[in-house]
Amino acid sequence: MTILAETRAADTLQDDFQKVRALTAALATPLSDADASGQSMPDASPAKWHLAHTTWFLETFLLAGRSGYRLFDDRFGFLFNSYYESVGPRLRRDRRGMLTRPSLDDVLAFRAHVDAAMVRHWQDFDTPARALVTLAINHEQQHQELLLTDILDLFAANPLEPALFPHPGQTAVARPGGWTRHAGGICRIGHDGAGFAFDCEGPAHDVLLRPFALADTLVTNADWIAFIDAGGYRDPRLWLSDGWAWVQRDGIAAPLRWQQGPDGWSSFTLSGRRAVDPAAPVTHLSFYEADAFASWAGARLPTEAEWEVAAAGADPAAGVQLNRAGPVAPVGSASLFGDCWQWTASAFLPYPGFRAVDGAVGEYNGKFMNGQMVLKGASCATPRGSSRASVRNFFTPAQRWQFTGLRLAKDI
Amino acid sequence: MTILAETRAADTLQDDFQKVRALTAALATPLSDADASGQSMPDASPAKWHLAHTTWFLETFLLAGRSGYRLFDDRFGFLFNSYYESVGPRLRRDRRGMLTRPSLDDVLAFRAHVDAAMVRHWQDFDTPARALVTLAINHEQQHQELLLTDILDLFAANPLEPALFPHPGQTAVARPGGWTRHAGGICRIGHDGAGFAFDCEGPAHDVLLRPFALADTLVTNADWIAFIDAGGYRDPRLWLSDGWAWVQRDGIAAPLRWQQGPDGWSSFTLSGRRAVDPAAPVTHLSFYEADAFASWAGARLPTEAEWEVAAAGADPAAGVQLNRAGPVAPVGSASLFGDCWQWTASAFLPYPGFRAVDGAVGEYNGKFMNGQMVLKGASCATPRGSSRASVRNFFTPAQRWQFTGLRLAKDI
Amino acid sequence: MTILAETRAADTLQDDFQKVRALTAALATPLSDADASGQSMPDASPAKWHLAHTTWFLETFLLAGRSGYRLFDDRFGFLFNSYYESVGPRLRRDRRGMLTRPSLDDVLAFRAHVDAAMVRHWQDFDTPARALVTLAINHEQQHQELLLTDILDLFAANPLEPALFPHPGQTAVARPGGWTRHAGGICRIGHDGAGFAFDCEGPAHDVLLRPFALADTLVTNADWIAFIDAGGYRDPRLWLSDGWAWVQRDGIAAPLRWQQGPDGWSSFTLSGRRAVDPAAPVTHLSFYEADAFASWAGARLPTEAEWEVAAAGADPAAGVQLNRAGPVAPVGSASLFGDCWQWTASAFLPYPGFRAVDGAVGEYNGKFMNGQMVLKGASCATPRGSSRASVRNFFTPAQRWQFTGLRLAKDI
Amino acid sequence: MTILAETRAADTLQDDFQKVRALTAALATPLSDADASGQSMPDASPAKWHLAHTTWFLETFLLAGRSGYRLFDDRFGFLFNSYYESVGPRLRRDRRGMLTRPSLDDVLAFRAHVDAAMVRHWQDFDTPARALVTLAINHEQQHQELLLTDILDLFAANPLEPALFPHPGQTAVARPGGWTRHAGGICRIGHDGAGFAFDCEGPAHDVLLRPFALADTLVTNADWIAFIDAGGYRDPRLWLSDGWAWVQRDGIAAPLRWQQGPDGWSSFTLSGRRAVDPAAPVTHLSFYEADAFASWAGARLPTEAEWEVAAAGADPAAGVQLNRAGPVAPVGSASLFGDCWQWTASAFLPYPGFRAVDGAVGEYNGKFMNGQMVLKGASCATPRGSSRASVRNFFTPAQRWQFTGLRLAKDI
Repeated sequence: MTILAETRAADTLQDDFQKVRALTAALATPLSDADASGQSMPDASPAKWHLAHTTWFLETFLLAGRSGYRLFDDRFGFLFNSYYESVGPRLRRDRRGMLTRPSLDDVLAFRAHVDAAMVRHWQDFDTPARALVTLAINHEQQHQELLLTDILDLFAANPLEPALFPHPGQTAVARPGGWTRHAGGICRIGHDGAGFAFDCEGPAHDVLLRPFALADTLVTNADWIAFIDAGGYRDPRLWLSDGWAWVQRDGIAAPLRWQQGPDGWSSFTLSGRRAVDPAAPVTHLSFYEADAFASWAGARLPTEAEWEVAAAGADPAAGVQLNRAGPVAPVGSASLFGDCWQWTASAFLPYPGFRAVDGAVGEYNGKFMNGQMVLKGASCATPRGSSRASVRNFFTPAQRWQFTGLRLAKDI
Repeated sequence: MTILAETRAADTLQDDFQKVRALTAALATPLSDADASGQSMPDASPAKWHLAHTTWFLETFLLAGRSGYRLFDDRFGFLFNSYYESVGPRLRRDRRGMLTRPSLDDVLAFRAHVDAAMVRHWQDFDTPARALVTLAINHEQQHQELLLTDILDLFAANPLEPALFPHPGQTAVARPGGWTRHAGGICRIGHDGAGFAFDCEGPAHDVLLRPFALADTLVTNADWIAFIDAGGYRDPRLWLSDGWAWVQRDGIAAPLRWQQGPDGWSSFTLSGRRAVDPAAPVTHLSFYEADAFASWAGARLPTEAEWEVAAAGADPAAGVQLNRAGPVAPVGSASLFGDCWQWTASAFLPYPGFRAVDGAVGEYNGKFMNGQMVLKGASCATPRGSSRASVRNFFTPAQRWQFTGLRLAKDI
Repeated sequence: MTILAETRAADTLQDDFQKVRALTAALATPLSDADASGQSMPDASPAKWHLAHTTWFLETFLLAGRSGYRLFDDRFGFLFNSYYESVGPRLRRDRRGMLTRPSLDDVLAFRAHVDAAMVRHWQDFDTPARALVTLAINHEQQHQELLLTDILDLFAANPLEPALFPHPGQTAVARPGGWTRHAGGICRIGHDGAGFAFDCEGPAHDVLLRPFALADTLVTNADWIAFIDAGGYRDPRLWLSDGWAWVQRDGIAAPLRWQQGPDGWSSFTLSGRRAVDPAAPVTHLSFYEADAFASWAGARLPTEAEWEVAAAGADPAAGVQLNRAGPVAPVGSASLFGDCWQWTASAFLPYPGFRAVDGAVGEYNGKFMNGQMVLKGASCATPRGSSRASVRNFFTPAQRWQFTGLRLAKDI
Repeated sequence: MTILAETRAADTLQDDFQKVRALTAALATPLSDADASGQSMPDASPAKWHLAHTTWFLETFLLAGRSGYRLFDDRFGFLFNSYYESVGPRLRRDRRGMLTRPSLDDVLAFRAHVDAAMVRHWQDFDTPARALVTLAINHEQQHQELLLTDILDLFAANPLEPALFPHPGQTAVARPGGWTRHAGGICRIGHDGAGFAFDCEGPAHDVLLRPFALADTLVTNADWIAFIDAGGYRDPRLWLSDGWAWVQRDGIAAPLRWQQGPDGWSSFTLSGRRAVDPAAPVTHLSFYEADAFASWAGARLPTEAEWEVAAAGADPAAGVQLNRAGPVAPVGSASLFGDCWQWTASAFLPYPGFRAVDGAVGEYNGKFMNGQMVLKGASCATPRGSSRASVRNFFTPAQRWQFTGLRLAKDI
């Protein structure tokens, strides 16, 4: 995987690495040992597990076997391997919530042990190792986002509805909607090899696009309430067949965790239950809902190629993103990044010429290229500095515990 | 849907219509009333249901409301609607096997009633109606194939393992394998509007392909036994993550209904249990299996565009296909059509510019564009005359009760 | 099992045997091949299966191995063994509906083959064999009832709601309710060994009862409608915990297959859908419903011992029961037998001193003594002549596809 | 419920109450906040939940509404109601593990708040209230046992297999087995009203027993290994039908959490994984296993009446039971109490004359009288002082996460 060969300058790399490690720990600061151990569903993992798994990744792929390195606990390989079949057996995903031990303190000690070893061994890392450090940084940033969304799901399952962070106090400002036209033709997408990218973002390649237009703004909560009020959840003609079955079986009638009260709609956020802000982007949608909305609006979802072509030149750091104070509530912005992941019409499939890397890290993304749809952009929970136009996030069509929304497209 | 406006010449159309209707009834000839009522799983329907549903399609979309037409039984709309939400409520799919009545004779009387009405009203059919007749012909041909594969699944569930047809006596002839190279570039795929096509086959559009090679022959049973013997079903590195979970949960170790005995592998066919013919194309594979085999073979599955471009100029009627004597066992041929459906690497998604038709027939294919993979070609159970290079068959990745196999591709 | 040693006089036995065999076939007369092959749920079996299984019982336990006897089809052991682990492997119960072959005609030929062999070998049957014939007669009578109730369930699952028999035209006559008091004390229950009984009916033994009263009449449909109207299905205080969970999960609000229309309640019968007769005994109740009704009525269900003691001296043939014309609709009678099976408060457990017989027939009832409640009496579908006060029918608490009702008891 | 009217002397009562409250908190001492929040399965509850639920019981039934009493948190009623439909809605049982908040410290503060209020209001408690205090003491003792067995199940689900208590170091001493004969006849069982009993233990009543013998000792681990070695888990003839289905579906081959290693069998205990002690009573058996073993041994399980009659005069405090040092491993003793709960052949059904109490506490046991089997005695985790010969513990036949074993009986 040649894209892994690229690494940051050695001095910046270590600084970046340490900042990312510190941020993960900081995100867990408001959590009790119990909070950090809870698992709300098989798709979500305990915060403690994220803290340990990212550390296991370093221990397994960078430290194990190096002279003088002692495994922190030789049972942790079984506990904190996620899905690497090549590395060995592992705890069933849906049983991660059984790990009331090791304690959060033990896991933080595991982190300290590995972080110290990383410092000790830093000068030994050759180019492939530095590429693995870069991968580990990006891997850990992914888990930072999951840590937050998994805690959100856990707290939502608690009738007390606790808040992780105080609300930042911002509210969204409505923006004029509009459409930006694109001429199509032969366009290049995918990561070109400069800077880090996950394996699935490449190879860069040409695609042939027809002329299209992309909405300047994300669909807002106000738009979504109009969809609800128009009976969108009750009209089978708007829905994919599987989506309609899901709506009927699970009694779906609003985005995840929305509730209607005498004062209107509320949703559950990292700052607890809050009134829905009409001007803010709607989030916590399944692909089915995003697709049905687009049909109702007489538009469609963009393909991943359209979105990426339209994003050329956009600054991935422009959006409102994660910081030590926690992710803010989504604010309606023109930004492609930083509010919510945006469902596309594209299935998550390999790009032409894609080959999985040899070895365990080759299991990273390729084996998930089935049954999932691509999302582009970045959400309010995505770490600042980890966004790229070529990023391909992916979830199955009914998953919606992430900050997932949509932006419309149409043919012109 | 402009492609529906195209119809065959009026004189040929009626002849074609009657031949197709006659063939469906002929396929059911070996079935008892009980055979025609059995349902092996929710994915499969009783033969009786196929006989009636295709007739309901005619009654609902072509005859109902015409002057002098009397519904055969006004309760049949509920029984034999498949999935048309716009048309009204319907029997749950997994309860179709409860229809021990109406009897097979009643259903044949329903067919006769509708066929006679079609003759009476034929001269009244305007151009849109004739387009619907064309659609009905093709729709019924699809159900002819399903009727056979569903009976195959039912008979396979019976420990007596009955045969539907006597074995035709043919055996496959091994052919030299090879690769045909294609230069790629901008290519046109999709149905161009001349002759009938299902809505999902269009619009015709350009795609940009990289150079590739397509195998001249289908993967054979001998190839598959080599894969089994090499431990293909036991090596997680070959499999998509969902596929590996499926293999482990269901204990998958061979194609559907294969059994290993002292004399080697056998499989269950429309002529009962038979020794596996090494030179014949392997069939009854899931997408997961096809994909894992391709990985093991150091190749990949073709995309639907690659397959279709490669098939340009091939004669869809060249393969060995269905006739009154029943489908023959697959014979190893160079043909793209007539042996088995071939899994591709492409998800079943709308072509650029695709719009569902208004009204109930708009539910035909669009709402299933989720979670399924495209198969190209035609199988030994596909009716002669219904194949086209632009046809997009689709199933979910674990389904394998159809005659599904694979042909390899590779980058060049 | 000494009770099996008792047999009828040899001359009567053969006559009885042939009458029972003839009645089973007669009951199937209105069924098509498809009707006889349908299976509505795993608890129910196809009529064809009942016809064949009762015949397999004779072949396996009375004919197999006798000089000159040829098995009709050596594959039938696998198909038509019900649950005798000692006899060998067998078809999964929930797959019996896959047996579209052998055809109904084939099964009737199997019956003829075995019946003829029974005649040929009759003079060879020694005392143990004649005891097995007696068991086979009673076993077949049980399957006669199941054949009818399983067909009822199958036809109820068909939206066409076909009728098996024309309605006999009787309606129920309301009877004055009252209570008959019993003094209790040491009473003897269980079968005393004179005449046939199933193994679980013995040994006869003494029980100590407190004084109690038993209602003279069965609970009627009118009573049940009063329970519904009083909110009985919505008040958790009336229900066992498992019962309330069942009510909520399955949305239970009336006896099985009852529907409320503009003209009041209807139910589905062997004569199709019919208005509920207020004076007739309510049937198709689960144990949970019977128990909740008793609580609501300020009474309780009788124990099996109370019921049996109260039935001492009653004529089991007095009720309205099955005949060639088919079972009639329940008519309100004072009879303990012949209207419906009556749920008791007793779990189905072994009587003191019970021991399973050696060999395969020892699997007859003992291994089901878990998780089931006893029902006493006999229903309108129970064959005339097969009822006894000591009979212990049993079903799990939520099963209600049989003709199950209740009679109240109370302490005095 | 007249048995509730009996209470201890007022001075002893308060002392008893405070000791029980203190013991519950002491049992939780080794637990972290995370340990106390984990839920291994729907049948088990988090330790935190037990700590809070027993406190909610006091608040709801004894304190709420009293002058000057302030609810600790008005949301706790929803969180910590177990199953009292009359009291209001409640958290789904299988979601108790989502309560990472309130924290363990918050729950302990809730306990302190309620305990202080109990002191303040003590002099206000009239006779019915004192009866409720007695009920609360016994209720909390039940939850002490569940707290331990639920933690055991949680720790068993953790691959690290942590220990709750250090092992006490005792080992079992083999005792000579023998049989004690009982003459049967009319015997009185059930609670006679002197001292506390749960509602289901009464009314006391006469039963008629046949002569029987009860084994002097419990079945041991050595006995069980002999059963395993004899193929007991592989012989369907030994098993109830539902039990055999359970064995096959779940691959049962040993008591819960037993593992076979090179050094023989080990099991998981409150002191971690330990070698199985041959002389100790076998525990963690389902009813199905206990019943199959009895069949294999040519004996049977005792009825609950036989056990209770045989236990007349035994000292319930004689066994080895719970103390501050934690429950010890089962030691082979002649005691009826204090080693393990013993499965009986009796279904959990109401005694003659049983009536549920009015009001919410009437939901205590009556509504569970369905689908469960009675266990007699007391286990090593049962609090000292809470055992009685009349106690009727109950579980469904496949449950085995408690300390459940067996003692044989036979007819004489």
